[in-house]
Amino acid sequence: MRILVLGGDGYLGWPTALHLSQRGHEVAVADNFVRRQYDLEMGVDSLVPIESLQTRAEVWHSVTGKTIEVHVGDLTDADFTYGTLRAFRPDTVVHFAEQRAAPYSMIDRKHAVYTQVNNVTGTLNLLYAIAEIDRDIHLVKLGTMGEYGTPNIDIEEGWLEVEHNGRRDRVLYPKRPGSFYHLSKVHDSHNIEFACRIWGLRATDLNQGVVYGQQTPETVLDDRLATRFDYDAVFGTVLNRFVIQAVLGHPLTVYGTGGQTRGILDIRDTVRCVQLACENPAAAGEFRVFNQMTQSLSVRRIAETVAECFPNDVEITRLDNPRVEREEHYYNVTHTGLVDLGLVPHLLSDTLITSLFDVAKRHAHRVRPRALSPRVHWRQSTSPVQQS
Amino acid sequence: MRILVLGGDGYLGWPTALHLSQRGHEVAVADNFVRRQYDLEMGVDSLVPIESLQTRAEVWHSVTGKTIEVHVGDLTDADFTYGTLRAFRPDTVVHFAEQRAAPYSMIDRKHAVYTQVNNVTGTLNLLYAIAEIDRDIHLVKLGTMGEYGTPNIDIEEGWLEVEHNGRRDRVLYPKRPGSFYHLSKVHDSHNIEFACRIWGLRATDLNQGVVYGQQTPETVLDDRLATRFDYDAVFGTVLNRFVIQAVLGHPLTVYGTGGQTRGILDIRDTVRCVQLACENPAAAGEFRVFNQMTQSLSVRRIAETVAECFPNDVEITRLDNPRVEREEHYYNVTHTGLVDLGLVPHLLSDTLITSLFDVAKRHAHRVRPRALSPRVHWRQSTSPVQQS
Repeated sequence: MRILVLGGDGYLGWPTALHLSQRGHEVAVADNFVRRQYDLEMGVDSLVPIESLQTRAEVWHSVTGKTIEVHVGDLTDADFTYGTLRAFRPDTVVHFAEQRAAPYSMIDRKHAVYTQVNNVTGTLNLLYAIAEIDRDIHLVKLGTMGEYGTPNIDIEEGWLEVEHNGRRDRVLYPKRPGSFYHLSKVHDSHNIEFACRIWGLRATDLNQGVVYGQQTPETVLDDRLATRFDYDAVFGTVLNRFVIQAVLGHPLTVYGTGGQTRGILDIRDTVRCVQLACENPAAAGEFRVFNQMTQSLSVRRIAETVAECFPNDVEITRLDNPRVEREEHYYNVTHTGLVDLGLVPHLLSDTLITSLFDVAKRHAHRVRPRALSPRVHWRQSTSPVQQS
Repeated sequence: MRILVLGGDGYLGWPTALHLSQRGHEVAVADNFVRRQYDLEMGVDSLVPIESLQTRAEVWHSVTGKTIEVHVGDLTDADFTYGTLRAFRPDTVVHFAEQRAAPYSMIDRKHAVYTQVNNVTGTLNLLYAIAEIDRDIHLVKLGTMGEYGTPNIDIEEGWLEVEHNGRRDRVLYPKRPGSFYHLSKVHDSHNIEFACRIWGLRATDLNQGVVYGQQTPETVLDDRLATRFDYDAVFGTVLNRFVIQAVLGHPLTVYGTGGQTRGILDIRDTVRCVQLACENPAAAGEFRVFNQMTQSLSVRRIAETVAECFPNDVEITRLDNPRVEREEHYYNVTHTGLVDLGLVPHLLSDTLITSLFDVAKRHAHRVRPRALSPRVHWRQSTSPVQQS
């Protein structure tokens, strides 16, 4: 099948493109490299050095003989979006191409507006391009478990059967997320469901948990195929950041009590989940939602797990929580859709964490330590991060 | 109290400003006049001639001795938004300043993106301006009953008590609206609820039904205080449009079976509802939602009511529905919040409709008949309206 991966230069977009190519699909990637621009803005960089997208594709070709077509441009530029779909004519579009950090969206007004306008406009352009070019294209869209927030009832996969005053309906699962970034994904989900309804589009919304890990069977074939590994407080996800703190001999910084529970998954499961979604498309007109996570752990428990695996002593400290969120709450998530399609999860293990310690040690000299401290505070409306 | 009315040049913004001024509040209005620009784009105009905003304010002063301060600018320009709040220092901001027509948002990709970016960015700028200038300002935001769609369960006021698998929560009412315009309001509601949660803002979201009527006790004091009256298929709301069709001797055009049921209200109740919301502010941190409508009627029943009131014979015809919507559905809405604050509804009456016939007759020569036909089709992704 022909699969276009939007955001194919990113932490997960790149390994997903490799995995789909390795599975025998015809793959093209598109990216505007704005993720690398955020690094320059924040004064940070991927802990693991990464090659240019063009070099990555060339190395992939030399290692495997397989071709990944590279398109450079921005989804908010409709000419680019339409042109790329017309040139590649995908069966499936995998859409990772959004600003994806909650703290980045909460820096100040400009970053909030940028995040929502960028994400919503890119997705709207894509929906219209599909509607006008080929309504049979399957859209596989990356959402986030953070869209749901932490309701006091079980979290279902996108839809909820409700009984109210003696009547029943199946409604979109009510969402109450915790940042302007997460809200942008809620806006996207509503827009996509509507496009399925009026134009008969087929879409899969993947509400993804927090991803950890840095290597997949494809990225380890050559150092130049590595994907990014973010350690900073803005783009670094929680387990990855704890690993780097441990290696640096820093305390692991838990926000608040650490009772916040998150759905998490291994990067190898991310690429497999996207593959399963692509190979088993949604029906015409169907807005299908999967909760893409394999287990739930509290942030405190994640920190303890990393500390237990590390050979030396590791301190865990609490920081005042820069976010506004419940720190102790109910959290029970249905995530059977992808398992039904064949996912066999990699659960968090000592082996995985130990291999991450090796990655972090090799590149520890690249860390800018101040970037590990949270400088974006939800209760404030402006946080001067650049002057950090 | 000091009240800033954003979108104060519009169909409802202007009569609301007058009503609040008449009640003794200190009122300022802001507008960018983009609503008048849409008329130029569509080749239509308000059936009732309207004066410039500055003239309107001068006439109001000469008639009543009361002052309405005029600010000209665009909410998506944050300098304007912040500057206006700093200059006027309102206690309450009433926010009508959004693109408000579903068909306009469904013309094509550009109009969809424009509607969502304009509405979401303006509201985000306003939320940040309140957070940074004075978190005690009460935001009264105009939403729409169309945000809910037509669920098979009772529609509550913004929140829903859910029991699921033996556990309970109070969640945001799940919404499934029918246009990119209505979706922009859903996005706004989610963003506003979040701002209340993280910054302790106080907000009232008014999910308004379809408004009919053109005169309030204040606008009739002088012809130059008239508000707009839209007859075209893009901006004309349903009852107003039927009245004009009847006066022109055209058939009343019902989309599909006409079983679509809508919450409706009299323009005199709109201005009273906004007043009640302003004078009874939400608590700090509260996201309060009222369903601002006074009765539910099917589109078919609205057409029949207009036809029964008209002195001559009136034909009712069905058009293929240009929208994608349920034409026969359950519709039962809770709307007690504003009644509890003191609203005494004007229910739809012969007298009101007869007075609208008079308004329409007086200006019937200004109608461009082709603009009455729907040219925006939901199932298509582009509709060439300008060439109509």
